[in-house]
Amino acid sequence: MDIPLHHEEHLKSSDVLTDVVIGMSDGLTVPFALAAGLSGAVDSTHIIVIAGIAEIAAGSIAMGLGGYLAGKTEQDHYNSEVKREFYEVENLRDREIAETKEFFASIGLSKELQDKATEEIAKDKKQWVDFMMKYELGLDRPDPKRATKSAMNIGLSYIAGGLVPLSPYFFVHSPIDGLKISVVVTLLCLFIFGFFKSRITGVNPWQGATRVMLIGAFAAGAAFGVAKLFEG
Amino acid sequence: MDIPLHHEEHLKSSDVLTDVVIGMSDGLTVPFALAAGLSGAVDSTHIIVIAGIAEIAAGSIAMGLGGYLAGKTEQDHYNSEVKREFYEVENLRDREIAETKEFFASIGLSKELQDKATEEIAKDKKQWVDFMMKYELGLDRPDPKRATKSAMNIGLSYIAGGLVPLSPYFFVHSPIDGLKISVVVTLLCLFIFGFFKSRITGVNPWQGATRVMLIGAFAAGAAFGVAKLFEG
Repeated sequence: MDIPLHHEEHLKSSDVLTDVVIGMSDGLTVPFALAAGLSGAVDSTHIIVIAGIAEIAAGSIAMGLGGYLAGKTEQDHYNSEVKREFYEVENLRDREIAETKEFFASIGLSKELQDKATEEIAKDKKQWVDFMMKYELGLDRPDPKRATKSAMNIGLSYIAGGLVPLSPYFFVHSPIDGLKISVVVTLLCLFIFGFFKSRITGVNPWQGATRVMLIGAFAAGAAFGVAKLFEG
Repeated sequence: MDIPLHHEEHLKSSDVLTDVVIGMSDGLTVPFALAAGLSGAVDSTHIIVIAGIAEIAAGSIAMGLGGYLAGKTEQDHYNSEVKREFYEVENLRDREIAETKEFFASIGLSKELQDKATEEIAKDKKQWVDFMMKYELGLDRPDPKRATKSAMNIGLSYIAGGLVPLSPYFFVHSPIDGLKISVVVTLLCLFIFGFFKSRITGVNPWQGATRVMLIGAFAAGAAFGVAKLFEG
């Protein structure tokens, strides 16, 4: 067993990294698979480039703004729950006292300490609400700038990821030639990306890298097959 | 202010709904925008249908398997952290004691109760590790079947969502005619979807519905513009 790190370390820097992983993961995979699918069904790389560019625009906006919306929703949800907790602490004090005792019972404290700890926490309403938000509801106060940052990170990562599988089609005329280069380049990038992603999330990097690459290959293969099917 | 519900209610059923929202949100938006983008750049709906089908295959697999991988990663991460905590409780007892006291200090307990509560929790190692996992690290024990279920839910929701904007192109010959029907049908669906999604997440439904619809419209507009640009 390697030397245990402070856990806090791997939980801190992960906001931006999570965004990049989300954006790049789909950015590398979906435009890759779309282009692969079209390669089996159309005669010119021109159509593939247009479809790929349209997909990257669509995907980056949908995912980026999706991330923005998710961030905003998280904030709205947090604010409405804070209001509700203040209301409950004020008007349904007995129930909140019972819930707080339940919490202390659930972590294994004795009846005596449940009562004492609840009494101490309930002295200060703000502190009590903070406690309920975090440990009864499991909600952390969201960073107000997070939604915008998240949108940018996810959207740009999607574009960066999407240009990798698409770029070979800019330079060749035959879709199948483009596909060959795209497959090699993209599977390599997916492997490298999967490797680093796995290291961040604490998974075995070789295994994680292989998984990520196989998903990409499988998505591309399925898109190719399905497009062939509908081409006829 | 309306009557407060038990919070537990809106946190329980949300696993499946979260998956459906994730899948359908992108499923309605990305194939819609891709088809819209191509409508401005190609002459036949045939290409749009092939590209759309390829995109739905690619997107559903990438998102579904992405969900699977995320679930698996969460499990692996949880398991490795449990091991680490058991190791620390065994071999770095003083530090763990200090961390546990810190927790009780952070929620506002007096020095006396911090010591007593820590002593009680540390009596049982399994209970102590459970506590540290949940409240120091904020990790919940993941449902082992969750990864597979999540993959299915997200993938199928993406397909269901994606067929909505694409279906008009099956029935008309002119891309622009297809686009007109697709825009009306999809924006309507996005509005309805956004409405229910907002109700689940506790956002104002009309505002949420408008936001979701605008993201779709914006993504489709951008894809249309970008595809037009590259068409020339």
